[in-house]
Amino acid sequence: MSITAPQGFIAAAGAAGIKPSGKSDLALVVNTGPHHHAAATFTRNKIVASPVKLTRRHIADGSLSAVLYNSGNANACNGAQGDHDAAESATLVAAELGCEVSDVAVCSTGLIGEPLPMDKLRAAIPGVAGGLGPHGAAAAEAILTTDTVAKEVLVDGDGFLLGGMGKGVGMMAPSLATMLVCLTTDAVASPHALNQALLKAVGVTFNTLDIDGSTSTNDTVIILASGASGVMPEQEELDRVVLAACENLAAQMQADAEGVTKRVTITVEGARTDADALNAARVLGRDNLFKCAMFGSDPNWGRVLAAIGMAEAELDPDGIDVYFNDEAVCLGSAGTPNARSVDLSGTDIAVRVNLGTGGAGTAVVRTTDLSHAYVEINSAYSS
Amino acid sequence: MSITAPQGFIAAAGAAGIKPSGKSDLALVVNTGPHHHAAATFTRNKIVASPVKLTRRHIADGSLSAVLYNSGNANACNGAQGDHDAAESATLVAAELGCEVSDVAVCSTGLIGEPLPMDKLRAAIPGVAGGLGPHGAAAAEAILTTDTVAKEVLVDGDGFLLGGMGKGVGMMAPSLATMLVCLTTDAVASPHALNQALLKAVGVTFNTLDIDGSTSTNDTVIILASGASGVMPEQEELDRVVLAACENLAAQMQADAEGVTKRVTITVEGARTDADALNAARVLGRDNLFKCAMFGSDPNWGRVLAAIGMAEAELDPDGIDVYFNDEAVCLGSAGTPNARSVDLSGTDIAVRVNLGTGGAGTAVVRTTDLSHAYVEINSAYSS
Repeated sequence: MSITAPQGFIAAAGAAGIKPSGKSDLALVVNTGPHHHAAATFTRNKIVASPVKLTRRHIADGSLSAVLYNSGNANACNGAQGDHDAAESATLVAAELGCEVSDVAVCSTGLIGEPLPMDKLRAAIPGVAGGLGPHGAAAAEAILTTDTVAKEVLVDGDGFLLGGMGKGVGMMAPSLATMLVCLTTDAVASPHALNQALLKAVGVTFNTLDIDGSTSTNDTVIILASGASGVMPEQEELDRVVLAACENLAAQMQADAEGVTKRVTITVEGARTDADALNAARVLGRDNLFKCAMFGSDPNWGRVLAAIGMAEAELDPDGIDVYFNDEAVCLGSAGTPNARSVDLSGTDIAVRVNLGTGGAGTAVVRTTDLSHAYVEINSAYSS
Repeated sequence: MSITAPQGFIAAAGAAGIKPSGKSDLALVVNTGPHHHAAATFTRNKIVASPVKLTRRHIADGSLSAVLYNSGNANACNGAQGDHDAAESATLVAAELGCEVSDVAVCSTGLIGEPLPMDKLRAAIPGVAGGLGPHGAAAAEAILTTDTVAKEVLVDGDGFLLGGMGKGVGMMAPSLATMLVCLTTDAVASPHALNQALLKAVGVTFNTLDIDGSTSTNDTVIILASGASGVMPEQEELDRVVLAACENLAAQMQADAEGVTKRVTITVEGARTDADALNAARVLGRDNLFKCAMFGSDPNWGRVLAAIGMAEAELDPDGIDVYFNDEAVCLGSAGTPNARSVDLSGTDIAVRVNLGTGGAGTAVVRTTDLSHAYVEINSAYSS
């Protein structure tokens, strides 16, 4: 179960010494063809890391042969030197593989603002390239930062396979930048078809996994298609498989989010539009008071209303319903008799909010609680 | 130094038993005239507490004789019963004072979604009204919830005085709703003049004190003018005095914010507009990763850039400067050699960010760190 399960993909990993721990920190994923189709989505942050700038350019023609991943250093906010280092990394890989530099993507994750140790990459890349094989699992390990477990997925398509790996402890990580995903498939699929499937899936998976509203400088989701199965799925089938893989990886990220003790699924309905519902769900998912209440297993629905009331969404101030784990705690913006006794002691909490507009707009956002461990991870150990 | 220092104001406080602790939880502020001019600003939340709805109506004519405060219960999200209880509270006060019901404002702060214990208010209001005198300090104590100290201010105007009291541990409090301020002055000032001074001052004080972006259902700032000094200040002088009082109370709130170990002042400059600068400063002030870094005294400027990059503000991605305590840690979006060694161990931290647009837009936001104590206060003890 990994990115090397689909036909046409090999991978390798190694320890270049970027991570002080000596753990593996370099991964190479290669598409051996016959097709080299690709699509990607990137962070919405205005400040983007050098590898994001490079990969955006290299994927513009819909073609990629390889992706080099490094963890331990984001190569973000390093000025012209960062751009130069990203380009040299791609050049080193292209030389090893005998492909065009413009067919190599680069993804980095780790501390922002530290120059990439190019001497270590120069020394390590040939060895990693020499070890290419069915080593998807090793690659999935090498891209981790504060993640505690590797995140892999394999989905069966109709006559083809789609594998994936990801890293990211929520949509954010402490001074570590952050969510990277690589999907591989042996389906025959054009860059346009891949792009369409990816955008649809990302919109309802990674883009609704909102741990604290922080968005990194490095987020990159890439899909590579080798066509080696010889099977060209209908767009609908491709969409289904890509969505299944993204849903699975997003759930793994939510479960491994920093300091998480609760997984909270927020459903907003009764909104005028889906966009209104999404805005309200995001505002609630980012509200620290609400997140602290979830940590305390506290059915404090007043915090839900206080947060929702600040959303840029049409709502009926006197007509909001709130359910915790499907029990009504607030109806028509007033508490129910047993609201305070709802049991939220379990790990998974479902919060459902109806904005009372009578509209059909709805959205789901996945978030976590705000715990002592989150504060600890993001303060005590960060530098 | 209190709201009863200006001529024409008396106050009283008492323990109605709304707070389980038995501490004082009821305060009455009365303007004995000769003028009864007033102005107010309220929460921007779409979900507003019953006392906010009532006070908005009663202050519409620019006139108030008294404000009744209770702590321990927000009277928010209680439906029609909440509206009825707020109205009855005002009626009880008017009967004691012999004034119009429509000249009584009501402010509540405390738990959302619990009915106001009207039997306790009915029993306590006559006693409180009977004890009216120069008891501003007692009133300032009675409005507190999770605040650890009372917050009072007295500003000398040119021939008149302005007193104030406030409560609020940041712009938010745990299931407690939240920021209330009462300003009193013996200046001769029209409701229009008061409103103008208040809006100007609130915009650059309370509205830029942003502990976590949470906005309560009850926030109310009221200013009352008795005219008893006989002095009518120029608008400019009134503005100055109101601003000084609001600045002072806002600083007291920041210092007492929940779980605070650091007071962080964020200045954004080099923005295209002041609005852009304010947006960027707010986004940074609400970023949990940045706030955790402040808690850890960690000069992690990468988090500043990652947060600023998500602001709805024009910026130069390659031209951002960041200063911690006036030391440059990032110039042109790249780290300075000594960036990681800047000392942030003190209680006050100044963060200055230049967005690099060359514009003159600037803004200041005051925030705090995100500490273990914040999580503790807002999870373990909330219900």
